Formats: sequence, C-alpha cells, structure tokens
Amino acid sequence: MSESENIAAPELDEAPENNVTDEESRLRPEFVERVLDAVDEGDVETARKLVEPLHPADVADLIELAARDEREGLVKALAGIVSPDVLAEMNDYVREGLLDEMEPQQVADIAGQLETDDAVALIEDLDRDDQQAVLRAMEPDDRAAVEEALGYPEESAGRLMQRDVCAVPEHWNVGKVIDYLRSTRELPDDFWEVFVVNAAHHPVGTCKLSTILRTPRNRPVSEIMHREQSLIPVDMDQEDVALRFQKYALVSAAVVDDEGRLVGMITVDDVVHIIQEEAGEDVLLLAGVGDEGDINEPVQLTVRRRLFWLVINLGTAIVAASVVSLFQGEIGKYAVLAVLMPIVAGMGGNAGTQTLAVAVRALATNQLTESNTLRAFGRELKIALANGMTLGVLIGTGVALVFGNPLLGAVMGTAMVINNLAAGLGGILVPVTLDRFRIDPAVSSAVFVTTITDVTGFFSFLGLAAAVGLGS
Amino acid sequence: MSESENIAAPELDEAPENNVTDEESRLRPEFVERVLDAVDEGDVETARKLVEPLHPADVADLIELAARDEREGLVKALAGIVSPDVLAEMNDYVREGLLDEMEPQQVADIAGQLETDDAVALIEDLDRDDQQAVLRAMEPDDRAAVEEALGYPEESAGRLMQRDVCAVPEHWNVGKVIDYLRSTRELPDDFWEVFVVNAAHHPVGTCKLSTILRTPRNRPVSEIMHREQSLIPVDMDQEDVALRFQKYALVSAAVVDDEGRLVGMITVDDVVHIIQEEAGEDVLLLAGVGDEGDINEPVQLTVRRRLFWLVINLGTAIVAASVVSLFQGEIGKYAVLAVLMPIVAGMGGNAGTQTLAVAVRALATNQLTESNTLRAFGRELKIALANGMTLGVLIGTGVALVFGNPLLGAVMGTAMVINNLAAGLGGILVPVTLDRFRIDPAVSSAVFVTTITDVTGFFSFLGLAAAVGLGS
Repeated sequence: MSESENIAAPELDEAPENNVTDEESRLRPEFVERVLDAVDEGDVETARKLVEPLHPADVADLIELAARDEREGLVKALAGIVSPDVLAEMNDYVREGLLDEMEPQQVADIAGQLETDDAVALIEDLDRDDQQAVLRAMEPDDRAAVEEALGYPEESAGRLMQRDVCAVPEHWNVGKVIDYLRSTRELPDDFWEVFVVNAAHHPVGTCKLSTILRTPRNRPVSEIMHREQSLIPVDMDQEDVALRFQKYALVSAAVVDDEGRLVGMITVDDVVHIIQEEAGEDVLLLAGVGDEGDINEPVQLTVRRRLFWLVINLGTAIVAASVVSLFQGEIGKYAVLAVLMPIVAGMGGNAGTQTLAVAVRALATNQLTESNTLRAFGRELKIALANGMTLGVLIGTGVALVFGNPLLGAVMGTAMVINNLAAGLGGILVPVTLDRFRIDPAVSSAVFVTTITDVTGFFSFLGLAAAVGLGS
Repeated sequence: MSESENIAAPELDEAPENNVTDEESRLRPEFVERVLDAVDEGDVETARKLVEPLHPADVADLIELAARDEREGLVKALAGIVSPDVLAEMNDYVREGLLDEMEPQQVADIAGQLETDDAVALIEDLDRDDQQAVLRAMEPDDRAAVEEALGYPEESAGRLMQRDVCAVPEHWNVGKVIDYLRSTRELPDDFWEVFVVNAAHHPVGTCKLSTILRTPRNRPVSEIMHREQSLIPVDMDQEDVALRFQKYALVSAAVVDDEGRLVGMITVDDVVHIIQEEAGEDVLLLAGVGDEGDINEPVQLTVRRRLFWLVINLGTAIVAASVVSLFQGEIGKYAVLAVLMPIVAGMGGNAGTQTLAVAVRALATNQLTESNTLRAFGRELKIALANGMTLGVLIGTGVALVFGNPLLGAVMGTAMVINNLAAGLGGILVPVTLDRFRIDPAVSSAVFVTTITDVTGFFSFLGLAAAVGLGS
C-alpha cells in the first residue's frame, strides 16, 4: 500500500450523496416508476429532485427505460438535467427520436458543447437534410471539426478521434512541458498521456502524466518518453482500433494521417463501448438479426431485418426438405424414418453451431490466423469424430433396442457420425473461407452451416436406410 | 489543435523501429514461419533478432501461434525475451503448458516481477499443490499480497485489483500532492487518478493527474476533486465491474471493502479484456461450448464440454421426435407431411434464435430490466406475428400450388404462424425467466427454446394435418 501514512484529519465520512451511481448498477424499477409517475402527475419538482443527482449515463438509461410516448414529457420535465452529455450517452434510436423533435439550432447548440467525437456521433445518424441544417447552425470552428470527421469513413478511427491533443516537441524538458500544460487553455478535457512529436509533426513517443509529474523539471522528455507506441492510421476500422487498445492495454493512442503526421487522439473511454459492441455483435449476427439487435430499434425496421434472414433460411429449409422428398417412398412404407431423421439433422446442426461459434470468436479476436488454420481444422475434426462416435453409438444402440431393429440402429449411428463430421468440417471451413474473402464470417456462416448439416443429415440417414433396404 | 506552435527542431523522423507493433495487427504467417524455421535450424540468433523488437503481447501471440510441440523450443530460444509480461499476456492454456515445465522457484520469480493482479492471474490457474509450492517460494510481501487476493472469490474485483494505490488525505493541497508523488517510491507503475480519502480511509473523491498538473499548488485537493465516483465493492463480479467501467467511461476506480475503506484500485487496462470476454462469451454459451470456446484448450476438455451439451440436446431431440411418432399413421399414408414438417420446426428455431440472441444481449448489457420487460414482450410478439404471417402466407401459398392441395397449404401456413409466435414468446420468456432466477440466460436458454419450437412445430403441423383429415 502506498497511500500516505499521515491521514489523520478529523473529518467524518459525510458523503452519501457523492456515490449515487453506486447503489445499484441497474436503475431500480420502483425508482423509474416514481420518476415517471411524478412527471405524469405534473410534479416536475419531485422528478427533478430524484434525477438530479444521477450520472449522465444513468439519466440516459432512465430515458431509455421510459416508454416511447413518455419520453418527450420526461425530457421536458428534466430540461437542463438532460445535458449534452446525457444525449451523448443515449441509445442511438432513443436519441434520434428526441432530436427529431428539436430545432436544428437546438441540436447545433448541443453538439457545440460536446467533444468532436461525441458531436459526430450525434450528427452522423441524422438524415442528410437535418444534418446539413444542424451543421449550418453550428459555430464555424465546431462545424469545420465535425465536417472533417464526417469526411472519414463510418466506423473509422477518424470518426472516433478527438482533434484536440496534447503534443510537445521532443527537445523540450519536463519543466517546459509542465509550464505548457499549466498555461495552455485549449487542451482536451481528459488526457492521460502527452504525445511527443518531431519537426515533421510525426509522433515519436508518449509520456504518461504520472511520469511527467514524478520526473525532475530539467530532464528532457526524449529521455523519459516511451518510444514504443501504437499509432492508429486515421482510416483504420474501429474494430481494429478496439483490438489494438485491448491487445496493448492502451489508455490513449495517437492517430496519424497518410503521411504519418499526428492528427488526433483516441482515448480508451471512446473505445470500451466499441469493444463491447463488436464482441457482442457476433451472437446477433450469427442469429440473423443484423449487427444491432437493439430493443430500441423501431419495430418495422426490426421486422424487415429479421425477415430478410428468415426468408433466406426458408430457402435453405426448402432445399433440405427436397432431399427428404427423394425418399417419400421409403418414408411412406416405414414412417419411423420420419421420426428419426430430425434427430440426425438437428444434432448435426447443434455440433455445427458449436464449431462455428468457436471459429467466429477465434477469427474476431485474431487467435485464428493463417498460421494455425490447418491445426484448427485438425482439432475440429478430432472433436467431431470423438463426439460423433459417442453420440452415434449412444443413439444407434438406443434405436436398435427400442425399435428391435439392429439395422435401423446401425444406419442411425452411422448417419450420426457422418453428420457430425460434416458439422465439424463445415463449422470451421465456412467461416474461415468467408474470412479469407474478407466477408464477416458472423454474418452468413450460420445459414451455410445449417444447410450443410440439414442436407447431410437427411441424405446420409435416408440414403443409407434406402441403400440397406429399410422401407422397401 | 492544441499542440505547441513552436515545433521547429531540425531532427528528422528516424524511428521506424519504434513502431514495430503497428505494421500489422496480426502477426504475418511468413514472419511466424521464419521465426519457427530459425529455431528449428538451431539459428537462435536470427530468431531472437526477429522477435526482440516485438511488444510483449505480440511475443505472447507468436508463442500461441506455434504448434504445441514447437512452443518449448521457441521459449528456450527466446529466453529473456519471454519476460514475465509476455507470460501475463499469454492465453491461459498455453501459459499453463509452459509453467508446468518450470520449477516452482522460477514461477515464483516471474510472479514476483508482476503487479499483484497479473501475478494472481498467473497463479490462480495452477493445481493446488503447484500453487502452494509457488507461494512458498515467493518473497513474503509478494506472497501475502497474492494470498490475500486469492482469498477473494474467483472473477471478483478483489482478484482484479492492484493493492498499490495512490491515495491522499482530503486536507492536502495540490503542491503537497505533487511533492508526495515526486518523493514516494512505492506507487503503482501506471496510475491516472489520485484517490482522495477521509480520516476513516473512505474514498471521498478522485483527482485526474491532468487536473493536478494544471492547478496552482496552493489549491486544496478537496476543491478540485470529483466527488462523484464509482466505488467498486471488493466482492463485485468482474462482469459488473466491466459494465461499470463501460457505462461511466472510467479509467480507474477505487475498490472498497465492506466498511467502505479503500483497499485497491482497478485500472481500465485490466478491464478491457474482460469486457471483450464477457460480451463475446454469449455466442459461445448459446452455442453450447461453455464460456471459453478457446482454440488452445486441450482437445479432451473441449470434447467433454461440448459432448455435455450435445447429449442434453439429444434428449430434447428425442422429445421432439416422440411428437412426430404420434403421427406415424398419417405420415405413412401421406409422406409429404414428413417432407414439410422440418421446415416448420426449423423456421421456428430460426425465429426463436433471433429473439433469444437479442434478449440475451439486452439482459447482459442491462438494457432489458424489470422496468421494460413487459414492453419488450409486446415488441417481440408484434414482430413474431408480422414475420409469422408473412412466412405463413408465403410458404402456405407455395405448398398449396406445388402440391395442388390448398388444405395442405392452409395447414402449413397456420402451423408456421403458430410456431413463430411460440418462437417469439419462448425466445424472450425463457431468458428473462432464467435471469430472474439469477441463472445466466446465455447458458441454457437455447436448449429450452429449440425444444419449444421443435415440439410446437411438429405438433402444430402434424396435429392440424391430422385434424383436417390429411393422411387419413
């Protein structure tokens, strides 16, 4: 422990109201209810008193938790409390709903109070016309900054970064840096490192503020700076930015243009929600709900997004069904085949989904690369064979006993092994192939893999049954 | 831009070797190949020259990318380069494989060079006996710190935190804080904020280093500190810690014991990989591969983990098949029913998975709480009805035309609507119910939902067909 020894001041703990964000990480339903009831009854003062001590992120959550038709009234009652920061923290769809009700000038004022990256996030989702109107209403300086950021591709480092950075030339000493920090007003609100640049304005190192604080004034920064640093190209995809921050445990990083010049900085607080989104979106993509699966998304939009994938799945289900239709004769004579076939297909689907999920995550986190693809293939085949054999023997024996038909059991068991192998192979081959073609494997792998396991399942089971004369 | 105007030093950019981590976020296969070949040929010097400039996180990745039987040789060749930091960055299973080959004293020396949280991560995965041996070999101070951390539950804040914190009493002024930072040697390696504590050692505020740097020496810290802060209870689950950091965009946070006393701090770099893991594990849990789905996991362990879920799925598949068996008579007479039934069951499964994925993510990110559960239910039912109707009409019409049997088409379409509603309802009811009982909805929801959609799909389609006299 390194805290000071001489903590002896007589003050008592008297700060319950300091820690309002700590009582519950979820806003309690009763609390939400009380606020909404107060607004409903026109008791604005009570509502404001309840909400005032909350962190902007909690105020944003509160507004999200209100029903759509309650939100406008709530925001009106909380005028002043719903600050630009609250809007910056808010879910995109909920915010859009609120911004739609405002004048461009109001939106422009809000954007003007935010850092560039938050202002861009606010403005980038507006319709083209609204966007233009808001930009025209902004101060020239802020407007230029936002327009420049909007010039970078969506979801790129350029949109994420702040243009305000704290940069010092490499020939300065620590004392000069401290004086500069003290005397310069236009520094970013939050910064944790100072970037050291050369004459060409290329970053050559970084200096943590703790190092600056703890180093004698006369030491040159070039002696204490970290030369190793992760430079983020301005057009880098935000997913890669997030991986960088995670891999190298960065707190902030310099963003450079094509010529390697420092143009901005990204801080970790802008990146944590991207890490969470990007890691969490795989489950949504694999399930076929798009990359958001946001419960605040307008219902019509959700219906359309999901229907798109359901219709594609319908197509593949028809393909699988057409395999079954080849064996109608056998099924007509021996309906037990129809009872058992969904088990083979379904179990293949389950095994395929297992492999697929692992492969997609391993690709997303750069654990599965060209260097170890072959090894991963072998690994999945081994697993598929082991589990296929176990399940095949299990269900094969069970079927032979229950139906008193060893031949049927053998067919069932064999089909199970075959389909498990197809599942293991498909589960890794499909995502790796899509990845090589630079298609996000999470987006469409599941459809391919399920088709493979359905078709293989039905075909191997019914085909083997027909071949050995079951149902003839 | 706020960087200094007078950048005029004549130095040229001369730092290509500073940025080795930037050329590629993935280690290129050719590079990995070259290193491994060099080791293989006994050309240790080339291997070391290639790897030396890499960031510890990249060295860790390199070792992970090598095949299991190449790793030991590689690590030997890179002795000294494979630093404690490299081991801290390494995949758990790969690290375990390497630590197993070392003497307890070696492991103890490595742990002694790491911060408490990294040392704990290294030691907590060892077998009980090895753990004891390593602890005995450690320096008493380090050992006490690690043992205390191991006393907290796994995956709790207590295991994540560093015990070294920078804490100052609230009656100090800025100048005294700066002098303290300058003169105290035992401060954490990285810290971004100073915690202000009262006489009872309770945190009462935080001060960003940038604020300290930019404030005149005579201002009291109590005037410039942020009073609002997120205090992490020492037994809080790491998933909740990660959500806190994300929600409030924290860079560091104070950890407090039951009495509210400051006992440590967690910094964002310790949390980013948890945010990523926790968000990414839902896809693995839903797919039934456990919470790791790690491609470095020993094959036998993977086989066992996946088999567990496959056997459970087999049970539910048999339940669904037994529904089909009730209608063998109808299927025997009209085999087309067997052709179409997988479509109804499968499409229900797809729709259920969509709803489930959205619900699981919304629960994990605290977007879906008691306050809006009812609304979310209504939303999913609306979506299920809309998509069920569309798909029902589509496939019903198609079936009626293809098989020349409007009655069959009507049965198919109706079953489709029914199963979509079951999917929508099950897809949200199951995870929400599990969550209320404090069971992670990602772990077992998928099994329940698929069972619901399979059984409903088969029963509604075959039952309706039987009721209207198809196949009789």
